[in-house]
Amino acid sequence: MVSSPLSTVSSLASDARAWLDKMWSGIADRGEAYAAVPAASIPAPERARQLAQALLSERGEASGAAVARELHDTLCELSPEDRIGFLVFLAESFAPDPQVLRAAAEAYLVEPTPARAAALCQAAEAPRQELLRRMNMAPGSTHALILLREELLAHADAHPVLKLLDADFHHLLASWFNRGFLELRRIDWQTPAAVLEKLIAYEAVHEIQGWEDLRRRLAPDRRCFAFFHPALPGEPLIFVEVALTHGLASAVQPLLALDRSDSHEARRRRAGTADTATFYSISNCQEGLRGISFGNFLIKQVVEELKAELPALTRFATLSPIPGFRRWLDRYLAGPDGAEALSPGETEVLAAETGLPEDSNPAELIAKAIAGEGWRDGTRSAALNGPLLRLCALYLTQPTRLGARMDPVARFHLGNGARLERLNPLANTSARGMRESYGLMVNYLYDRDTIEANHEAFVRSGRIIRSAEVEALLSSPPKP
Amino acid sequence: MVSSPLSTVSSLASDARAWLDKMWSGIADRGEAYAAVPAASIPAPERARQLAQALLSERGEASGAAVARELHDTLCELSPEDRIGFLVFLAESFAPDPQVLRAAAEAYLVEPTPARAAALCQAAEAPRQELLRRMNMAPGSTHALILLREELLAHADAHPVLKLLDADFHHLLASWFNRGFLELRRIDWQTPAAVLEKLIAYEAVHEIQGWEDLRRRLAPDRRCFAFFHPALPGEPLIFVEVALTHGLASAVQPLLALDRSDSHEARRRRAGTADTATFYSISNCQEGLRGISFGNFLIKQVVEELKAELPALTRFATLSPIPGFRRWLDRYLAGPDGAEALSPGETEVLAAETGLPEDSNPAELIAKAIAGEGWRDGTRSAALNGPLLRLCALYLTQPTRLGARMDPVARFHLGNGARLERLNPLANTSARGMRESYGLMVNYLYDRDTIEANHEAFVRSGRIIRSAEVEALLSSPPKP
Amino acid sequence: MVSSPLSTVSSLASDARAWLDKMWSGIADRGEAYAAVPAASIPAPERARQLAQALLSERGEASGAAVARELHDTLCELSPEDRIGFLVFLAESFAPDPQVLRAAAEAYLVEPTPARAAALCQAAEAPRQELLRRMNMAPGSTHALILLREELLAHADAHPVLKLLDADFHHLLASWFNRGFLELRRIDWQTPAAVLEKLIAYEAVHEIQGWEDLRRRLAPDRRCFAFFHPALPGEPLIFVEVALTHGLASAVQPLLALDRSDSHEARRRRAGTADTATFYSISNCQEGLRGISFGNFLIKQVVEELKAELPALTRFATLSPIPGFRRWLDRYLAGPDGAEALSPGETEVLAAETGLPEDSNPAELIAKAIAGEGWRDGTRSAALNGPLLRLCALYLTQPTRLGARMDPVARFHLGNGARLERLNPLANTSARGMRESYGLMVNYLYDRDTIEANHEAFVRSGRIIRSAEVEALLSSPPKP
Amino acid sequence: MVSSPLSTVSSLASDARAWLDKMWSGIADRGEAYAAVPAASIPAPERARQLAQALLSERGEASGAAVARELHDTLCELSPEDRIGFLVFLAESFAPDPQVLRAAAEAYLVEPTPARAAALCQAAEAPRQELLRRMNMAPGSTHALILLREELLAHADAHPVLKLLDADFHHLLASWFNRGFLELRRIDWQTPAAVLEKLIAYEAVHEIQGWEDLRRRLAPDRRCFAFFHPALPGEPLIFVEVALTHGLASAVQPLLALDRSDSHEARRRRAGTADTATFYSISNCQEGLRGISFGNFLIKQVVEELKAELPALTRFATLSPIPGFRRWLDRYLAGPDGAEALSPGETEVLAAETGLPEDSNPAELIAKAIAGEGWRDGTRSAALNGPLLRLCALYLTQPTRLGARMDPVARFHLGNGARLERLNPLANTSARGMRESYGLMVNYLYDRDTIEANHEAFVRSGRIIRSAEVEALLSSPPKP
Repeated sequence: MVSSPLSTVSSLASDARAWLDKMWSGIADRGEAYAAVPAASIPAPERARQLAQALLSERGEASGAAVARELHDTLCELSPEDRIGFLVFLAESFAPDPQVLRAAAEAYLVEPTPARAAALCQAAEAPRQELLRRMNMAPGSTHALILLREELLAHADAHPVLKLLDADFHHLLASWFNRGFLELRRIDWQTPAAVLEKLIAYEAVHEIQGWEDLRRRLAPDRRCFAFFHPALPGEPLIFVEVALTHGLASAVQPLLALDRSDSHEARRRRAGTADTATFYSISNCQEGLRGISFGNFLIKQVVEELKAELPALTRFATLSPIPGFRRWLDRYLAGPDGAEALSPGETEVLAAETGLPEDSNPAELIAKAIAGEGWRDGTRSAALNGPLLRLCALYLTQPTRLGARMDPVARFHLGNGARLERLNPLANTSARGMRESYGLMVNYLYDRDTIEANHEAFVRSGRIIRSAEVEALLSSPPKP
Repeated sequence: MVSSPLSTVSSLASDARAWLDKMWSGIADRGEAYAAVPAASIPAPERARQLAQALLSERGEASGAAVARELHDTLCELSPEDRIGFLVFLAESFAPDPQVLRAAAEAYLVEPTPARAAALCQAAEAPRQELLRRMNMAPGSTHALILLREELLAHADAHPVLKLLDADFHHLLASWFNRGFLELRRIDWQTPAAVLEKLIAYEAVHEIQGWEDLRRRLAPDRRCFAFFHPALPGEPLIFVEVALTHGLASAVQPLLALDRSDSHEARRRRAGTADTATFYSISNCQEGLRGISFGNFLIKQVVEELKAELPALTRFATLSPIPGFRRWLDRYLAGPDGAEALSPGETEVLAAETGLPEDSNPAELIAKAIAGEGWRDGTRSAALNGPLLRLCALYLTQPTRLGARMDPVARFHLGNGARLERLNPLANTSARGMRESYGLMVNYLYDRDTIEANHEAFVRSGRIIRSAEVEALLSSPPKP
Repeated sequence: MVSSPLSTVSSLASDARAWLDKMWSGIADRGEAYAAVPAASIPAPERARQLAQALLSERGEASGAAVARELHDTLCELSPEDRIGFLVFLAESFAPDPQVLRAAAEAYLVEPTPARAAALCQAAEAPRQELLRRMNMAPGSTHALILLREELLAHADAHPVLKLLDADFHHLLASWFNRGFLELRRIDWQTPAAVLEKLIAYEAVHEIQGWEDLRRRLAPDRRCFAFFHPALPGEPLIFVEVALTHGLASAVQPLLALDRSDSHEARRRRAGTADTATFYSISNCQEGLRGISFGNFLIKQVVEELKAELPALTRFATLSPIPGFRRWLDRYLAGPDGAEALSPGETEVLAAETGLPEDSNPAELIAKAIAGEGWRDGTRSAALNGPLLRLCALYLTQPTRLGARMDPVARFHLGNGARLERLNPLANTSARGMRESYGLMVNYLYDRDTIEANHEAFVRSGRIIRSAEVEALLSSPPKP
Repeated sequence: MVSSPLSTVSSLASDARAWLDKMWSGIADRGEAYAAVPAASIPAPERARQLAQALLSERGEASGAAVARELHDTLCELSPEDRIGFLVFLAESFAPDPQVLRAAAEAYLVEPTPARAAALCQAAEAPRQELLRRMNMAPGSTHALILLREELLAHADAHPVLKLLDADFHHLLASWFNRGFLELRRIDWQTPAAVLEKLIAYEAVHEIQGWEDLRRRLAPDRRCFAFFHPALPGEPLIFVEVALTHGLASAVQPLLALDRSDSHEARRRRAGTADTATFYSISNCQEGLRGISFGNFLIKQVVEELKAELPALTRFATLSPIPGFRRWLDRYLAGPDGAEALSPGETEVLAAETGLPEDSNPAELIAKAIAGEGWRDGTRSAALNGPLLRLCALYLTQPTRLGARMDPVARFHLGNGARLERLNPLANTSARGMRESYGLMVNYLYDRDTIEANHEAFVRSGRIIRSAEVEALLSSPPKP
């Protein structure tokens, strides 16, 4: 094999890959793959438990990587139920030694010195954690552990004891997937197909329809970046899709459209002169890393990358969904303030448009006005936009009440220090977009100079920083 | 810039490198580098403390990587004393909250459930650890943290509170430098000079005399492997040097000799037919990773690599120093058993050779017989070898007593599951070799089939597995 | 940007890529791309001619790369007709100097020394060649020249003078694409999408239906290799698709089928135990390299690669189309030997099957027996196979006559030293396969030990080496 | 082994490397290496000739790469004399077919059409060229051919027929090492040692004293670039060393000095603000590529690279030796103009300084004034600089006469379009510098805007473009 001057020695990475493949296929075709593997004399579930114990024993010290590997192999052989059984076994059998812990707790209470606090901490750490660390010694096992946690999360409700084990998983993975270990990589048409197909699989915001669609999202007037971890070389952890635009993008369908009349070269030229980078999709890829946040880091690093590559860019903003808007709106309109949500004039127009009586419930008026394709119509659309924008501004900025939690996407970006910049009507007219937010989308602006202050204001006092345009929406009365 | 299809995006790694360079130079030329940096209004030591606090606050959440970077930059500016002061500050100021911890301890004692144990563990973890994790968010900071711990270790005796902080460092680094994250790479003449010069600097067993000497150690009948961590791409963590030999190597000087008459091609042919891989040097490179063991993994993985590359190899063994032998021997000969250590016949020969009276102290007889170059002489050498080998076998296999600890190299290899295979006289005739062990060296054999059993026997019952040859040395009486 | 230790400096390769992209897009969207380029004061066709002259002048010496680049840029701006006009201009304007050549020819005839032969050679080389060499100095220009030749070849019939220029192109490209400069690379799912989509575009034998089909052809029981040239890093020159099979593959549809029930892991296991590598498709990618043969080298190198990777492989053979068989068969059956081509027994069965009279023309009998789906039927199929295999063996082994040329695929593989191994009925039942060869395919066997002798026998005496099985077909009389 | 997504398949590149090593070692230790190779039944010289013939025959077509490899292996076994014998055999035995050539020449003379010119060209090309092309088919053989040409060049005088073969070599290599195929790479401390040691070996202008010296030349305020060819991945073809300076460097010793007090970081800062890139050394590495010019391309591309990396750079100039100055000066002073070369005032001072009579020969006066260390002295140095600079300006700008050829370094840079910028006294005070040019060095300025015009003026009319400063030297009379 050809190797670069400082090439990693073979077995490490290629084993890792082979093993992961096996792991995958193990999960994928459990039905048939293991008939071919001769059953060992000890049943697999028992073997797994023995191997876990061996891994924490002297044998684990002498040849931990080998035992870890054997354990992972055995776990692949288990049925999903048995694998959950194994996780429950881990959670229950590798708890801290109660006598040692009790003694350490008592000693601390008697004399609460820093040294005794440290000793107490050590006594309180469950051996589960060390076991998970040792399970990580085999090549490819970081990914295996992530997949294992994914299964755990799916069953944690049914087995509360798993929550303890999950805390260990989370603690370890948060440490291992520390920002300092992540690699940002650009994804483009030069990226291996094996990585690209994962983008198709993982895109969670605006589904990728296939390779043609993907190709458009990687065209010269687009950018895509992902974080990777060295231990999972072919697995994106999170990725973001960016459109290079002139002005802030106000709708997502034009960004996704496949306009074949538009040449590669024209796109490249446009990218060079674009003044805005619109982040229109950000997707996590690893369910097994749930609760470990990468998005904030990703957006900020991508902003730096783009600035360095394309000096003409002066604005960095998202085009984001508002997944909770419609649900909130329905409650809001049904509530005490609902009656005043529309002005008489708006009510009149919508009633005329929909054929409903003017004293109809505003929620009903809006819903009917939007139903079918009618909302695309100029008059009706115009009559709807005013109230919808106003109400949506209210939704995104009001103190959370009505039992509702803050819009999760808003919380994420505002928590990152972004500013609520602009609301866009008819911005996502897909079925999902209409269903979730009557087609509205929002731009959050990332401005390096104000990020820290915005974040602090948001975290400390819940203040939501917004543009003058949004402010105006909030203070403007319904049209008469 | 040219980038491979899946190239890591720029700023990450190149920043890391630039930053490390700066860090290094910061440490190297404190005298001048910081005159150029305009003093900020806040003195650097105070600034560092403020940044540490900010890193754990909301600001750290919004822009942790930037704050971490600023903190590392500031630490570079500090004088060594101030940096130690900063570490003491960390150790003292970021302890667990005593009230929370007390409450958690009491709660556990009242009802020692797994959930309360977990809560206790969380309460007992010092915020220092989270702070160190956040300090790792800046590019290049993993290395900076390792260098920081190196300084800490050098001053831990003077500041006992640093031992607590060191425990946090150790805990984190052991997790981050988990076997699963290490990359084995072969080092050869295709390796960048920047890495090679580190080998010259770090070789701890048989000093590398310069580039010519290094080149010989990387010739086609040699192998060199190192572990690397993805976050320190140009920094070997540990490396091992291997000679491919016909039969077990019995002396180190021939392995190191620069025989220019020996062609590259001849060496390659010899490598292809060699039956033994002799591991003649293994060196740790990062003092800041002290206590995190890589050697066992390294040797075992290298054995696998070599087997795959060179199927003719059937034996994998070290040629190791015995650093504690002479010190032990002097004590032993001065002790109660010393009188019987030499047989009358041996005493007679050595007395004749050295001109000392026959009733001289055996230690004196041996020391004088070896002094100068006399030991190279056939007769004298023959008379010395018998007793030395016998006594050395005793040293390496006896239960530790005389207040002496076990030979550290022996403990390492036996602990890994290796077998004590053969003792070699006149094996390291350098000044150091003569001083430490009267020139003796030892081969430890790594045999995959017995490693686990050997390790268990050693760890559980202190049994030292040895070859028949060593066994014979132990049971053979002194020559009459 | 991250760069590997010995990374190529930026502008070279990335410019090349950018430039090629521009070239491509220039070709693709001539309609719009060049409206944007302000017309220089000199019309592009004239500018191109001036630049060509400058390139051979002193200016070319001082800054050849820049002039070459400008020339290529200008060529992109030309309309296809003008570009042909430019090629005609090259062919006509850069001929050898007639006076110098005449003098050299006369000098040689007077005294035919080696030195004068060399001088004559120099005088006879058209400056066109040097011009093409200089056009290659700009980054990315090798590909541009290949695309230019592609256009030339498409118009050579209309402009006979272009044949001279083509000879220069061919001479240069044959030298530049010398075997020693080619790189064999494995193509798999880790390959960049930008390369993979070229496979979809270029596959010439069994069309690739899209990404799913491609993925199946790159599955673990398949191999795909391509030759690349360093100056065209993302452009395969030729590629071959290989199936790893147990026994010689006898039909192509099973190889191409998308069997989703078959797991990745099962395929990997099968690959590891396969005894035969079946080369089922080989496609050239660059029309502009027509006449420069890579297939022979590719097959032989891939055999070596596969042997090294998969030691269980003992047989390397193609599953090849017989594109000329049916055309030949129709002529043959219409000719003097046609009457005896089928035995009376065979005629009887086919007549019964088809409802045609027994004295029908054999060609008609066969064609009708095959028409529709009837040939899949057991009886009819059995009755057809005998005659078809016999006649096909005749076709592939007879001295070429009837004005027909040898089957081109046969000529290629036999010329490479392969052996005619086995004929397979119902082997390619696609419309094309039935149309070209009544569904028959052939295996050519590449056996390293006999390749040279086979090749010599074929080239020197036209002898076609064949297996005993094929020999038997030839000598067996039609079934009574 | 780990391979990048598009990794070149193994055997190609690693074989190439192994083979080259063998080739090298074959050349290096002929004395012993080949005793080990059992003599084949045919003596090697005869075997080589047979293989060359086979390579052009059918066997070469079937398995050219294998035959080529065998031929190269056999050539390694030959003694140097036998290898020259083989080259003579090539030159003599593979000449064009005289009958075919005669016929083609006659046909052309009868009717000098372009087609017949092309046919004549083909007939005149010696089969040697095709043979060399086929010898290139084996991996690693491009380098082998270059080494072969190196041997050829060393013996061409003794065997005039080799000049014909050399013309074929030159023709092929010039085509293969076309600018479009070269890769510019930066060389720094991250470069593999195997490449760096070649820099030490090949540096031809200012010898590199070892690894420490090399390290200084690769420090952050230096740049080094080389051209590589894809077929010789570890072999630089030519490299240039650049110092980043403030102002035009006027002496080379300060550039080469090892100033350890100067930190890495200080050097990096200086590099970032430097306004001038001084090219102080440029060395060809492959004697076997003699006559194929890379320097012009290299300098110009490096200028582009540096501009892109360091925007503060505004001036690109060499600091070059003047190897022919002293030899010319001695002749000049001995000639008719010599008497007036020094003004009476200058003569007086030098006579006083040296103790020679005032009517001494000016050459003698200058030589004695410089002898020993006296020239470093202020007064003497001042008295010398005037005449030396004036005379050197004359040397570098005068039409060539006195039988002397133009200074080769001047011819190179002026031919590239550079401007004669400044003469520097005491610029290279090494023994060689004093011996060749009395310590003078010269800056040639590369200014992109004037390069083409300068080149044309130089090539067409021999005009040497110079700065006003040099012009002033030329027109200023000797000091009274």
